[in-house]
Amino acid sequence: MKHTAGIRAFGLHLRRLRQARKLTQYALADYADISRPTVQRIEKGETAASLDVLLALAHALDIPLRELVDAPGIDKLA
Amino acid sequence: MKHTAGIRAFGLHLRRLRQARKLTQYALADYADISRPTVQRIEKGETAASLDVLLALAHALDIPLRELVDAPGIDKLA
Repeated sequence: MKHTAGIRAFGLHLRRLRQARKLTQYALADYADISRPTVQRIEKGETAASLDVLLALAHALDIPLRELVDAPGIDKLA
Repeated sequence: MKHTAGIRAFGLHLRRLRQARKLTQYALADYADISRPTVQRIEKGETAASLDVLLALAHALDIPLRELVDAPGIDKLA
């Protein structure tokens, strides 16, 4: 999997967004209609979420997609 | 596949970004190190690109990821 640095940066960003709203991984997974292990793997940077999952997460967090992916360092080449 | 409206909106946006830079699908695929059929399916809204592919496309177009996904209508629920 390429762009691992960007994917890890996104995972950290997602975790911060979730925790800022005092949501558990279960709650976020439930709102986004995805599995909790998927949320866990995305937050750990182990999985590159697909656009439909990114859209589901943005809707669950009630933020625009561009904000969801605006993670510090995500555009760094690696 | 859920969020099909958002995925289609992204495909159109990607096509506009590519054409604005006078790039063929082949050229964009080459720069992003992905296959041309993948670019084609993404532009047609048939495939939900994963985060690593989105990052590769953003780098190929030399724009931040948040700009790449800032497609009109992408956040509409459907």
